[in-house]
Amino acid sequence: MSNVFGKNISVTIFGESHGPLIGATVGGIEPGIKINKEYISEKLSKRRPFGKISTARREADEFRIVSGEFNGYTTGAPLTIIIENSDTKSRDYSEFLDTPRPSHADFTANVKYRGFQDYRGGGHFSGRITAPLVAVGAILQCYLEEKGIYIGTHIKSLKGIYDREFSDYSADIKLLSRKLFPTLSEKSEKEMLEFIEKTAEMGDSVGGVLESAVIGVPAGLGEPFFDSVESEISHILFSIPAVKGVSFGRGFGFSELLGSEANDAFETDGAAVYTKTNNNGGILGGISTGMPIIVNTAIKPTPSIFKEQESVSLSTLENKKLTIKGRHDPAIIHRARAVVDAALAIAIYDLILQNRSTT
Amino acid sequence: MSNVFGKNISVTIFGESHGPLIGATVGGIEPGIKINKEYISEKLSKRRPFGKISTARREADEFRIVSGEFNGYTTGAPLTIIIENSDTKSRDYSEFLDTPRPSHADFTANVKYRGFQDYRGGGHFSGRITAPLVAVGAILQCYLEEKGIYIGTHIKSLKGIYDREFSDYSADIKLLSRKLFPTLSEKSEKEMLEFIEKTAEMGDSVGGVLESAVIGVPAGLGEPFFDSVESEISHILFSIPAVKGVSFGRGFGFSELLGSEANDAFETDGAAVYTKTNNNGGILGGISTGMPIIVNTAIKPTPSIFKEQESVSLSTLENKKLTIKGRHDPAIIHRARAVVDAALAIAIYDLILQNRSTT
Amino acid sequence: MSNVFGKNISVTIFGESHGPLIGATVGGIEPGIKINKEYISEKLSKRRPFGKISTARREADEFRIVSGEFNGYTTGAPLTIIIENSDTKSRDYSEFLDTPRPSHADFTANVKYRGFQDYRGGGHFSGRITAPLVAVGAILQCYLEEKGIYIGTHIKSLKGIYDREFSDYSADIKLLSRKLFPTLSEKSEKEMLEFIEKTAEMGDSVGGVLESAVIGVPAGLGEPFFDSVESEISHILFSIPAVKGVSFGRGFGFSELLGSEANDAFETDGAAVYTKTNNNGGILGGISTGMPIIVNTAIKPTPSIFKEQESVSLSTLENKKLTIKGRHDPAIIHRARAVVDAALAIAIYDLILQNRSTT
Amino acid sequence: MSNVFGKNISVTIFGESHGPLIGATVGGIEPGIKINKEYISEKLSKRRPFGKISTARREADEFRIVSGEFNGYTTGAPLTIIIENSDTKSRDYSEFLDTPRPSHADFTANVKYRGFQDYRGGGHFSGRITAPLVAVGAILQCYLEEKGIYIGTHIKSLKGIYDREFSDYSADIKLLSRKLFPTLSEKSEKEMLEFIEKTAEMGDSVGGVLESAVIGVPAGLGEPFFDSVESEISHILFSIPAVKGVSFGRGFGFSELLGSEANDAFETDGAAVYTKTNNNGGILGGISTGMPIIVNTAIKPTPSIFKEQESVSLSTLENKKLTIKGRHDPAIIHRARAVVDAALAIAIYDLILQNRSTT
Repeated sequence: MSNVFGKNISVTIFGESHGPLIGATVGGIEPGIKINKEYISEKLSKRRPFGKISTARREADEFRIVSGEFNGYTTGAPLTIIIENSDTKSRDYSEFLDTPRPSHADFTANVKYRGFQDYRGGGHFSGRITAPLVAVGAILQCYLEEKGIYIGTHIKSLKGIYDREFSDYSADIKLLSRKLFPTLSEKSEKEMLEFIEKTAEMGDSVGGVLESAVIGVPAGLGEPFFDSVESEISHILFSIPAVKGVSFGRGFGFSELLGSEANDAFETDGAAVYTKTNNNGGILGGISTGMPIIVNTAIKPTPSIFKEQESVSLSTLENKKLTIKGRHDPAIIHRARAVVDAALAIAIYDLILQNRSTT
Repeated sequence: MSNVFGKNISVTIFGESHGPLIGATVGGIEPGIKINKEYISEKLSKRRPFGKISTARREADEFRIVSGEFNGYTTGAPLTIIIENSDTKSRDYSEFLDTPRPSHADFTANVKYRGFQDYRGGGHFSGRITAPLVAVGAILQCYLEEKGIYIGTHIKSLKGIYDREFSDYSADIKLLSRKLFPTLSEKSEKEMLEFIEKTAEMGDSVGGVLESAVIGVPAGLGEPFFDSVESEISHILFSIPAVKGVSFGRGFGFSELLGSEANDAFETDGAAVYTKTNNNGGILGGISTGMPIIVNTAIKPTPSIFKEQESVSLSTLENKKLTIKGRHDPAIIHRARAVVDAALAIAIYDLILQNRSTT
Repeated sequence: MSNVFGKNISVTIFGESHGPLIGATVGGIEPGIKINKEYISEKLSKRRPFGKISTARREADEFRIVSGEFNGYTTGAPLTIIIENSDTKSRDYSEFLDTPRPSHADFTANVKYRGFQDYRGGGHFSGRITAPLVAVGAILQCYLEEKGIYIGTHIKSLKGIYDREFSDYSADIKLLSRKLFPTLSEKSEKEMLEFIEKTAEMGDSVGGVLESAVIGVPAGLGEPFFDSVESEISHILFSIPAVKGVSFGRGFGFSELLGSEANDAFETDGAAVYTKTNNNGGILGGISTGMPIIVNTAIKPTPSIFKEQESVSLSTLENKKLTIKGRHDPAIIHRARAVVDAALAIAIYDLILQNRSTT
Repeated sequence: MSNVFGKNISVTIFGESHGPLIGATVGGIEPGIKINKEYISEKLSKRRPFGKISTARREADEFRIVSGEFNGYTTGAPLTIIIENSDTKSRDYSEFLDTPRPSHADFTANVKYRGFQDYRGGGHFSGRITAPLVAVGAILQCYLEEKGIYIGTHIKSLKGIYDREFSDYSADIKLLSRKLFPTLSEKSEKEMLEFIEKTAEMGDSVGGVLESAVIGVPAGLGEPFFDSVESEISHILFSIPAVKGVSFGRGFGFSELLGSEANDAFETDGAAVYTKTNNNGGILGGISTGMPIIVNTAIKPTPSIFKEQESVSLSTLENKKLTIKGRHDPAIIHRARAVVDAALAIAIYDLILQNRSTT
């Protein structure tokens, strides 16, 4: 069930970059969740290309909710969102069926789907497919906010440029929700944007690391052994194109710590129990602690670059030079932020449903 | 279905650290797979504590296959492996029900299971539960080797000590299969062991990063959108206690590369198509390329240390000092290697089954 | 995951009777399956109301495949079919939110979805939702026919009128594929149609029993213990509105047989092994035998009748008379045939995928 | 995932008739459910052979709970029950590998598992495998009773002998819980037992129909479209060996009713809403109504009879006579009752968990 995610909800995704429309269906959603269309639009706008640092393909991303909504609320029946594809130029892509673009899915899609895949614009492998995911995530994120759960993601690092760390989670998440280019510091925003523009001029591309915080998550989420909070979140994050690493709390940095440095001491103010530090990123034994959930997501550089690259002809099995033309992003990390936020909302909502009690 | 992993196979896990036995059932396994009990024992021995760098709890790990095997082969019916717990000292743990150990699952288990959890030795959260996972993985790993698929994992880094990189995958994997302490270089083995022993003397602990290579994997595995190779592998790896990060290929290092540096050029010798570099770790668009699958797994330091730590009394909500006694590991990264190998074997076998074609 | 069916494929269904459109997404389908749109249209026409024995709501059922198809073949990516709702008259239904129609889902939907359900025309509970299921089933049924697997369903009994039994399965299935009112004998067709028309005149309705045969199914399908052929088929059949019984082979008639009468003797012609009788309906131990799979499906009378009925006001908790107006079917059993055929195609295809072997 | 049942709980089953032990693991069970071992034993005794009407194989069915229980309560971790096989005589079965017994799974198991299956005593296809299912069901049934949900099953018909209908559900269910041979009337018990004994003397066997009632089920359970109450219940019932038909309420009898006769009128006493009749068996639109859930289950005659039967040699592809010796049941319907009760408890508990609300 490759196109369905979730244990309690089911998010089904469909569509291709150059097909008539893309969409998603979410089943198992509770009835009575208010649908805030402006909120959804705003989240979609964060995923949409903008300015000089993005592809010239400009989709309006006008979404329609065609099932599961009635009088402005979810009904409990499967909710389907569709988004038309309008700005497609299919002529750019036919070459890549025979000559796969390095780091793209052209080659593996061809092996797996035996030439039957819709190769135009990457088909089902296009980042465009994440738009309905953002819309679904927005519905859930809006609902989670009513419950006091807030999600925020910033670009932690990009080619040696580092954003400042989270300080006041609540204020920082609010700040990020207002920004199209999600950094916490203005200085790093300026430096990163300049670097991306310079990279674009060279016909090259760049990736980076996103850091997300989810605050207000109740303790007790997660279903060990196999459905730890980390397993659920990483599963959906690694389905996002270009994601190549996911870590929690100190992540790979744990390698440099002793247990006495890494362990998060417990503390109480007589009312609640919390940890003094949060090296474990809000998760112990696969279960949420109530502290902020901290996730890092590594994004590889956009595969489409305008420099000449080496590839092969799949039909003649000869080596070949390849130069990609058309409209592409020198960086997608700022756009990926919206997808990561959505994925986190989906995973957290699913974990909340799993954690319900009958007693 | 928190205790079940897999889409085509189902690995069900059960047991507690201080219960009578632990075990696993694997359903959906093909009939006719030869069961090599020596091979399983050898893999279990790699997970078992040894020497001065491990806990003094010594379990024989004598496993029994109680279903799904007949005349030395899998039958196709669910295969169950059980391992008795023999060397348990439950008196050590009763204190932690009220005073949770930092970085352990004591606190979150208590929240989630409302005091009903078997807290002895970490109960179901104990690393001990990974023993049957290793046994299941060994059956599949042995089978995958017959198909030319080999899995090897080494300690890439441990507190500033770095092992050498993989050079000849096939030879290096063979080398690792013979080692209880899995490094590629003898020098790094010596340095790491010395560091662990020193850490043990201080009553402290250490983590590290494991790097795994899976060679011989056919191109075409993985079921995007949601069941990418990365999603499947990370899902099971993040269910292993102490894992806090998973990345593929260059992983978080992609942040420092431009697209022109990161992209893996395609090349052909007229027969096969491969990539000149393997920054993507053998996976493009969530689908295997046929190149080695490269996975990095971050392991946090063992939470049990012998230094005094800060915790709370859950009953009185007062801050409290805590000193852990008993038998513990100053490092589990070398033992975790066997679990990571097993998890990879399980994920790869599941992905192979998903990729079968009827035509 | 209530709106998703399948272990290897995933059929996701969505839409409401009076929403803008209804649809289904099928994931996990193999690439390279030819899409025969005429075949799909023809199957949809069998589900569509016709003549005096059906509702006056007439939907064109013009379907669009909006993803997963390229150049006339499945791509392997999720395939989505949507069908617009055009002939909706929502004014007929508002009353039933407070006064549930007997035998309909009005009451239970209201309890479960707490008043948020789209109640117009039964919303997501409408039989209309089965149209995309028929379209998905048609794609698979067309493919199964290429593999020599044929599905046919007739009305076995309707209020004391019995159709003749299957004699030559292959010819009978062909016959049924040409009929809008699916009986094997012309006499029973005439009698049943007359009875339905008479029932319609009385403002009443009628149900019946459908009998299906699936021929050409290879031996070995089915995944005991829990995913027997019977479990898979009954699971999807019981999701069809109005289905209240499912049996295989002799079904409830086994109660009247001794073992010596019920057992199907094995026989061979030196080449193949088959059974002399087929009381077990082509399934032993939950696994297909290679003999025709025989399924009986009980359909309850259409709940909407024009006679005065007793109901309650949910707001005032008072007893109340109810008279349903509008457009309704005096019988839906002949239309349900198309849905049962589709459901069988989906279940059989899913079982075939599960049964693939890597060796 | 053929050996796992459930969406919220996961029941994993394993073992063979002549292996060392059989068992089941249930994951996702809530913590704090009291384990009543006497209650479990009593349910197992109802599945156990007794008197002249059963096989001479007598298993003590002494079960051990080896995980997931602590201090007499469920912990929330996977709960595993194992039952040793003690009274096995494997010599009786070797012949059937080549010469499959009619109506048994010998033939289909051989096709599916290619000769690797454990054929002794039917292996994994033996009814013996249902013993751990009964134990798991008993834990849940005991818990459901605390919540006011009671399950009772009687033999409705057996070769023309009919038991009386349910009259007072509560009293009748209590009556059935005390009986090893589950009929509501003493007369039918006597007649059925006599008939079974006579059948046994003839070396023949007999099946029948079980009718179950589940009372106290809250309205609102069931997850349409695909996970209707009927789908969930039939899915697990059809996994029980020998079950060939499942229906709800009037089931196949709906064929003889007009809508005006079949529809269940709603009625209220000013406090609750119920239906005057219960033809729909407590389920409308796939969702429970709050009325008793009524299920009928058709059981085929035990395949093992002592009369000479026709079979084939699978190795030589020649027709062959076969006479079964050994220990067998002339009827298993009274024993199947305990399995049906358990299956209903499992399905209802799973549906209750699915229906939890976060709000």
